[in-house]
Amino acid sequence: MSTERLIYLPLGGAGEIGMNCYVYGYGPKDKERLILVDLGVTFPDMDTSPGVDLIFPDLTWLTDRKDQLEAIFITHAHEDHVGAVGHFFGQLGVPVYARAFTANIARRKLSEHGFGDETVTTVSAYPERVETGPFKVSFVPVSHSIPESSSLLIETAGGRVFHTGDFKIDHDPIVGEAFDEALWQDIAKDGIKALVCDSTNVFSKSAGRSESELGGNLEALIKGAERMVVATTFASNVARVKTLAEAGERAGRSICLMGRAMRRMVEASIETGVLGSFPPVVSIDDARDVPRENLMLLVTGSQGERRAASAQLARGKFNGIEMKEGDMFLFSSKTIPGNERGVISIMNQFSEMGVDVVDDNDGLYHVSGHANRPDIAKAHELMDPQMVIPMHGEHRHLREHAKLAEEAGRASAVAVNGMMVELSGNKPKVVEYIETGRRYLDGSTQIGALDGIVRDRIRMALNGHVIVTVILDEDGEPLGEPWCELMGLPETGRSKAPLVEVLEEDLGQFLGRAKEATLKDDGKIEQELRKIARRTTLDEIGKKAEVSVIISRLA
Amino acid sequence: MSTERLIYLPLGGAGEIGMNCYVYGYGPKDKERLILVDLGVTFPDMDTSPGVDLIFPDLTWLTDRKDQLEAIFITHAHEDHVGAVGHFFGQLGVPVYARAFTANIARRKLSEHGFGDETVTTVSAYPERVETGPFKVSFVPVSHSIPESSSLLIETAGGRVFHTGDFKIDHDPIVGEAFDEALWQDIAKDGIKALVCDSTNVFSKSAGRSESELGGNLEALIKGAERMVVATTFASNVARVKTLAEAGERAGRSICLMGRAMRRMVEASIETGVLGSFPPVVSIDDARDVPRENLMLLVTGSQGERRAASAQLARGKFNGIEMKEGDMFLFSSKTIPGNERGVISIMNQFSEMGVDVVDDNDGLYHVSGHANRPDIAKAHELMDPQMVIPMHGEHRHLREHAKLAEEAGRASAVAVNGMMVELSGNKPKVVEYIETGRRYLDGSTQIGALDGIVRDRIRMALNGHVIVTVILDEDGEPLGEPWCELMGLPETGRSKAPLVEVLEEDLGQFLGRAKEATLKDDGKIEQELRKIARRTTLDEIGKKAEVSVIISRLA
Repeated sequence: MSTERLIYLPLGGAGEIGMNCYVYGYGPKDKERLILVDLGVTFPDMDTSPGVDLIFPDLTWLTDRKDQLEAIFITHAHEDHVGAVGHFFGQLGVPVYARAFTANIARRKLSEHGFGDETVTTVSAYPERVETGPFKVSFVPVSHSIPESSSLLIETAGGRVFHTGDFKIDHDPIVGEAFDEALWQDIAKDGIKALVCDSTNVFSKSAGRSESELGGNLEALIKGAERMVVATTFASNVARVKTLAEAGERAGRSICLMGRAMRRMVEASIETGVLGSFPPVVSIDDARDVPRENLMLLVTGSQGERRAASAQLARGKFNGIEMKEGDMFLFSSKTIPGNERGVISIMNQFSEMGVDVVDDNDGLYHVSGHANRPDIAKAHELMDPQMVIPMHGEHRHLREHAKLAEEAGRASAVAVNGMMVELSGNKPKVVEYIETGRRYLDGSTQIGALDGIVRDRIRMALNGHVIVTVILDEDGEPLGEPWCELMGLPETGRSKAPLVEVLEEDLGQFLGRAKEATLKDDGKIEQELRKIARRTTLDEIGKKAEVSVIISRLA
Repeated sequence: MSTERLIYLPLGGAGEIGMNCYVYGYGPKDKERLILVDLGVTFPDMDTSPGVDLIFPDLTWLTDRKDQLEAIFITHAHEDHVGAVGHFFGQLGVPVYARAFTANIARRKLSEHGFGDETVTTVSAYPERVETGPFKVSFVPVSHSIPESSSLLIETAGGRVFHTGDFKIDHDPIVGEAFDEALWQDIAKDGIKALVCDSTNVFSKSAGRSESELGGNLEALIKGAERMVVATTFASNVARVKTLAEAGERAGRSICLMGRAMRRMVEASIETGVLGSFPPVVSIDDARDVPRENLMLLVTGSQGERRAASAQLARGKFNGIEMKEGDMFLFSSKTIPGNERGVISIMNQFSEMGVDVVDDNDGLYHVSGHANRPDIAKAHELMDPQMVIPMHGEHRHLREHAKLAEEAGRASAVAVNGMMVELSGNKPKVVEYIETGRRYLDGSTQIGALDGIVRDRIRMALNGHVIVTVILDEDGEPLGEPWCELMGLPETGRSKAPLVEVLEEDLGQFLGRAKEATLKDDGKIEQELRKIARRTTLDEIGKKAEVSVIISRLA
């Protein structure tokens, strides 16, 4: 019996949508050789991570074992798959493999961190394979919503794993390769041990729709518009950008791309030749001279991002162009849960300008990039694996996906971030729980999600902040009264007297009566003053403020 | 020609969904007698109002004219229509009129602020009318999602206004009066000047569905459940609570109500007799002894509220009851935009417990309480008014609703909070812009939305807080170095030295070199120290922190 084992360990993306980061290992227990599949980010929100710029998986487990790590494979160029590669390449220091378009984007990210183009190796599609340690890895083209998306076929002596990456079943995806059932069946012929499979749309009951269904609807919509048309979608959804641009062209409009990400993505698509044809575009300078009824802008900001083109247009001008009454703004996109407020706010700002906002209520102007439930079931059938491991989903998605597999008689398991699963047997077996979590990029520094910094910010935001200053003289006696400063708190409360004065009075009384032993002990003074300040704010304004106490002792 | 005018002035609810508050006036310009229709609240969120407990309309315009105010009329007992009545009754001091169920809820709210039951007058339905000043107001029963919802017929010498309140067209609403087309037509016979009409669902294209469609679906769902069933909906949706309870009873389950709001609403419904029959309920104590497969809980928290029953069950026990593998949790509700994160988080917590979560993806287990687009059009037809004023909607809803009216040849206008509209002519005319806004209930105090308190909280949450303390001696010379304290900021940055030390070094250098004139000027010191601290944090950690400077001068 072999002592080698084949393992799967998600560090991100399992138990959440976004921040994809999956480890595979093969070899003797605890000495496995490892590869990393995807290294993505997720995005902060005000509720849980105010002030944070980006969220990364915690790679401590992996960096502790970096001598076991062979390589990093990136399935496609979405931020939640490639976004962290620049931030962690320095710590991991192994080759990065990707197909041309993804490699182009990855190199741009690495160069921002000072790494050269040679750090990323461009790989052709299956049947080409990368041999590294005990792994043979090939990129199997699959339809999604960004060019050159790939599933990975990971072959080891312990069995073959098929990692779908993000995918949908689209036989006419406009940009990139169509879903190729024959290819899947061909790969499946030699037996698949584990299908590690996208779960995003497992709750969507009807079969997914093709990108090619949108062109006609969009053309009709744009033809019916009387003045300027502006459309937004994910910049990385190059197929949609093309669908929109072509529909606009057929409707007799000049196309202009606005927003950095939009221009960069189209640029990368042209550089790597994945785009095929694309309508001629006019520069922003030239766009200003095009009659509004002949102009269509394609802009960033489909999720309501404050700094993107759509939000700027909603607030006023962007690049010298302004929305006006009778213009149309189209969201050719779905709002990701959590982004509703930002998107709705933009819709209302446009409404105030008299702009007609069109969204995807009816499914006419957007299709998803992920496999729906029947498509997931079809993927299971095509690949006919020994076991199905659901990935890329919140817990509820993974659980539903595992049920779907099990109902069809396949072994499955719900494995969230940090659960190491052994794939060697006939069914998945959780063999270890790894400590994982999230790291925050905060300005230019990385902080831990649980180290208290963000918790303190949330507390200040909820409760306001009282700063108490006390000066003690050379003899340890209070010099004057304590001072208070407020931030984020009302000036007066119940007693109608200024809150600062009520606080200073209460704190001063305590200090005036404090025993010598107390006054010698900074920790004790701080603790008592905090307690009093919290009680006073509760009395006065009905909430316990956060309190910082600063004690200065004159030497 | 008459010099009297009929005016409409929304102070809340127009340009937003929630916080309903509408003024009507009749009389000579600027001397109109006034009535207030609804006095509701809206709810805070972390993005825009962290730490805030409730949001009220700013009633300054009205309190400045309270000698012109005749009365307050409450259309129904939803929080966004009645929630602020207790908070403002003291300032307005005029009679409150409502139908029995609404009056019951309003009295509970007023009593929390120390006002007696006599403050609210119970009114019977149309044709009874309240005569107050130049107004004759009657409560016209209408179907919605809470008992005794009413439209208001407001009759003046300047014309009759029909204010729909929240409504839907439901001919079998389970609880409360069915929508009565004949009654609407009868009222319309004498001519309606203005229909002021609910806009919430103007983007929902198909006709609304009846509450009575749900019972069968729910019964089948509950019968198929193998272990405990827990269902949540808005507590105030008494019809749904009844539909759920009856479906549970038919499926052979004992019903238990959990959560304060749920029990209070059913209590008020029983006290006022609006409920008709209701299945027998078991107490929470008894529920613990009922076999799980025979038990159904109806709980609060359909919007993911952290303190409600559903969130507590998701985190662990509530009232000694715990969810277990194989139980079912049903959201018989729609998630209000902005609440997605909280709801999804609960769904995933249940998923981790092995609980099957059912939501309303398919419309099987929930119907809306508002009129959809075809129902709104039907309301226009039935009432056949001279003009339509859309209310209760964000700007985009109001605009769409006005278009709908205009397409059918009716005069209309988009009027948001603060826009005073004269209804006296043949079409609506905006005659004045009133300064309005929001007030926040923050703990026990009211603060203004724009007075900077919440802005400071958001800044601390985004940027962290640096507190700088400087002591100056009797001669105005710095006594030692400045001190820094951090809250919500990383301990180290770019230079790897403690951020506090880098700050103290930079600030100390400035103080050491500062001229005497600067040191005499607290404002100047503060300004310079803040500038330096912000620059240093930007250098070190890539973000400009919020800075408070505390200067202590020894006398």
